Amino acid sequence: MRVLRNIGLLATCRADGGQAEIHPLREAALAWEDGQIEWIGPEAQLPARYRDARSFDAAGRLVAPGLVDCHTHLAFAGWRADEFEQRIRGRSYLEIARSGGGILSTVHATRDASEEQLFERCRHFLDDILPLGVTTIECKSGYGLSREQELKLLRVYRALSEAGPARIVPTLLAAHVVPPEYRNDREGYVELVVREIIPQAAAEGLARCCDAFLEESAFTYGEAERILEAGREAGLLPKLHADQLSDGGGARLAATLRAVSADHLEHISDEGIQAIADKGVVAVSLPIATLVTNQHPLPARRLIERGVAVAVATDFNPGTAPSYHLPFALSLACSLQRMTPAEALKGATIHAARAVGLEDQVGSLEPGKVADFAVIDAPSVEQWLYHIRANACVATVIGGQVVAGELATAF
Amino acid sequence: MRVLRNIGLLATCRADGGQAEIHPLREAALAWEDGQIEWIGPEAQLPARYRDARSFDAAGRLVAPGLVDCHTHLAFAGWRADEFEQRIRGRSYLEIARSGGGILSTVHATRDASEEQLFERCRHFLDDILPLGVTTIECKSGYGLSREQELKLLRVYRALSEAGPARIVPTLLAAHVVPPEYRNDREGYVELVVREIIPQAAAEGLARCCDAFLEESAFTYGEAERILEAGREAGLLPKLHADQLSDGGGARLAATLRAVSADHLEHISDEGIQAIADKGVVAVSLPIATLVTNQHPLPARRLIERGVAVAVATDFNPGTAPSYHLPFALSLACSLQRMTPAEALKGATIHAARAVGLEDQVGSLEPGKVADFAVIDAPSVEQWLYHIRANACVATVIGGQVVAGELATAF
Repeated sequence: MRVLRNIGLLATCRADGGQAEIHPLREAALAWEDGQIEWIGPEAQLPARYRDARSFDAAGRLVAPGLVDCHTHLAFAGWRADEFEQRIRGRSYLEIARSGGGILSTVHATRDASEEQLFERCRHFLDDILPLGVTTIECKSGYGLSREQELKLLRVYRALSEAGPARIVPTLLAAHVVPPEYRNDREGYVELVVREIIPQAAAEGLARCCDAFLEESAFTYGEAERILEAGREAGLLPKLHADQLSDGGGARLAATLRAVSADHLEHISDEGIQAIADKGVVAVSLPIATLVTNQHPLPARRLIERGVAVAVATDFNPGTAPSYHLPFALSLACSLQRMTPAEALKGATIHAARAVGLEDQVGSLEPGKVADFAVIDAPSVEQWLYHIRANACVATVIGGQVVAGELATAF
Repeated sequence: MRVLRNIGLLATCRADGGQAEIHPLREAALAWEDGQIEWIGPEAQLPARYRDARSFDAAGRLVAPGLVDCHTHLAFAGWRADEFEQRIRGRSYLEIARSGGGILSTVHATRDASEEQLFERCRHFLDDILPLGVTTIECKSGYGLSREQELKLLRVYRALSEAGPARIVPTLLAAHVVPPEYRNDREGYVELVVREIIPQAAAEGLARCCDAFLEESAFTYGEAERILEAGREAGLLPKLHADQLSDGGGARLAATLRAVSADHLEHISDEGIQAIADKGVVAVSLPIATLVTNQHPLPARRLIERGVAVAVATDFNPGTAPSYHLPFALSLACSLQRMTPAEALKGATIHAARAVGLEDQVGSLEPGKVADFAVIDAPSVEQWLYHIRANACVATVIGGQVVAGELATAF
C-alpha cells in the first residue's frame, strides 16, 4: 500500500462531462497497491486503513494521469533535418516526397538498421520521454514496408514492452506508403498487406491496432478500407491517418469502420465532423506536425462543439514532427488549435487512451485503473501549459513505481 | 589556460557574411584564459603552447556562443494564466487590457512585491534559464511605473548582475504603459519619465538601454520619441517596442533615433523595413509572443532580403510570452517566421548582442571575446533546432567557468 498526500490539485480526467471537464480534486490524496489505484479523494477523507501506509509528499503540486502519446512513429533510423530546412525555404511535403525524400528516405535507412540498433535507439528516446510525464506510447511500424521489415519493427516494440517500464501500444502501419518495389503494382502491395503482413502480425500478437495513411501520395479510400477491414477481421483496432493534406473522405471512412481514431484531420469537412461525431471516433490532433509543415490546424473548436472527443499527440517522426515532447504539443494545441489547457490535458489522457482502446486501463485516475501518474511543478493545468518550460514534470510513476524523477517521502 | 577539444562543429557566429552565415569550423578546438577566448581553429592546428593546458572533451558535439536573450521582462510578480485561457476563448489583448487585465494587473502585483522577493524569483528563473545555454539576458523594468518602483526593478537587476554568473543587461522601460494614477495626465507621466526617472537611473548606472512601447494602448509616436531622446542624452541606448499590434510608424522612429533595436514588428510596413535597413537597426523577432497572441509573424524573409539583421528573443513576460526557453523560440522562428536554423542561431547570438550594444564582448566565438559558450548534444544546428527536446544543452560556460551541466575532462 502506498499513498501520495498533499496533492494541491488532482486532475482525475474521468471520461464523462465533455472535453473541458477534468474532474479536479483539491487537497487530495491517491492510494494504490500492486500497481493499481485503490482510492482517490480529499486527503481529509483518507480512509483509516491507509493511515500507516508508506506515504509520499506531492508538496502541493499538480498530479495528472500519466500522459498517453497516442500517435508516434517511434522506431526509425536516420533523421531528416535537411528537409526541415527545405520546407522553410518553401518546398512542399509532396515535392520533397516526389523527389525521393520524405518517408521513403526513412524507409531506406530503417530497412538497413538491425532490430537491436532500433531497439537501442528507441530506448534512448524513451529515456527522454518518460521524464516528461508520459507513461503510455503508441508506436507505429510503417518504415519497413515488407513482411519481414514490418514485423522487425513490431518486434522492436515487443522488446521495448517486455523491457519496460513504458507501456507500449504497437500499431501495424504497413499501409504508410506504397514501397518503391511495388510502385507499378499497388494492388500487389495491398494484397501482401492483407494476406500476409496483417495475418502474421495478428497471429504473433505483435500489434494492437492497424492503421493506414489515406492520402493522394499514399493509399486510396478503397485501399485503406480493404486494409483496415482485414485488420479488424484479424482482431486489430482500426485507426486512420485522414484528411491531412486534403479532404480525402478519411473521416467518413473512419466513421464507417467505427475506427478507434481518425488522426490529423487538418482538412476535415463538416460532413466528416458529423460522421465521426455520430460514431464516437476520437479525433487525434497533431499540433507539432501542424507547426512544422506550416498547415492550418484541425478545427478543434468545431469538433468539440459537435461532441467529438479530441486527443492530442506528438506524431513523433523524423519528417513532419521531430519532437516527442508531449507537454509541448499540449501547449501548441492551446495556441494553435484554441483548446483550453484543461481540454488539451483531457486530450492527452482519457481521450488518448480511447484512441488506442485502452480507456479501461489507463488515461484517468480512478480506482481500478493502473497507478500511472505525473507530478507536475505547477499549481494548475493552466499554469503548467502556459508557462512553457524545458520540463515541469518532477516525477513519473508507472504501475505505482517511480520511473523518472523522484517522490519525496512524507513525514 | 583551458582548452575545449573534440568539437564536432563550432558555430563561431561572427558578424560578417549575412544572417545565414555562422562561420562553422569542423573538428575544432577553443582555448581561453582568464575568461577570455584566446584561440579558435581546427584542432589539428592547435598551437603548441596549449598542448599541456587543462583540456575538456566536447565529445564531437556542437558548440555555439552563449545565447543572448535580448528581450525579456524578467522581474515581475504574479502570473496571468487566466488571460491565456481568455485569449484562447477569443478575447483580444486590447480587450483584456481595457478591462483591467493585461500589463496593469502585473503592475499591481509587482508594486506589492519587495526587491528581495523579486530578486529571489528572478534567481529561480535564472536557475532554469542558464542550463538552456543562455548566458546574457536583457531585462526590462516596466511593471513599476513610478520613480521609486522602476528604480526598484532596476536594482533587482543590479543585484542579479552582482550575484552572477548570468550577464544581465538592464533596460529602463518606464514607458511600458501609462500608469493608472496618470490616466488623465499622460503628459505628466511623460514629464516624470523624462525629468526624473531617466536621469536618476542613468546617474546611478542602473540601466544600459532605454525602451518605450509605441502602440495605441501605450505611448504615441511623439511621446516615445521624446522619452528615447531623453534616454539617449542621458547615455542610454534607445530600443523600441514597435508595430506589434498595428503599424504605428515605430520602425521609422527607431531608424530616426538610430536605435540599437526595433522589437516585435509583426505589422512593419515596407517603408519601415527600408528605414531600419538603411540605419542598421536590429529587428528583434519574438516568436513566442506571435504564437501565444495568435498574431501573424514578423516578415523575417523580407527583412533578411533587405539586409536587416534579425534577432530572436523570448520576450519572457507573464502575459504574451510566458516562456524563457530561448532554444524553443529559435525552433518557433524556423517554423513560424521561415528562418533557417542557422539564421535563427545568428539571431540569438551576434545579432542579439548588437541589439543590446554588446557585440564587441559577447555573441560570437572569436579571440578577445568573453569565453561564453554552450555545448549542445546535436551534430548540427539544423538537428538541434528541428528535434525539439526539453533541453539539448549539456554544458553552459560563462567567462570560462561551467555554470550549468558539465564538461568532461579530456585525456
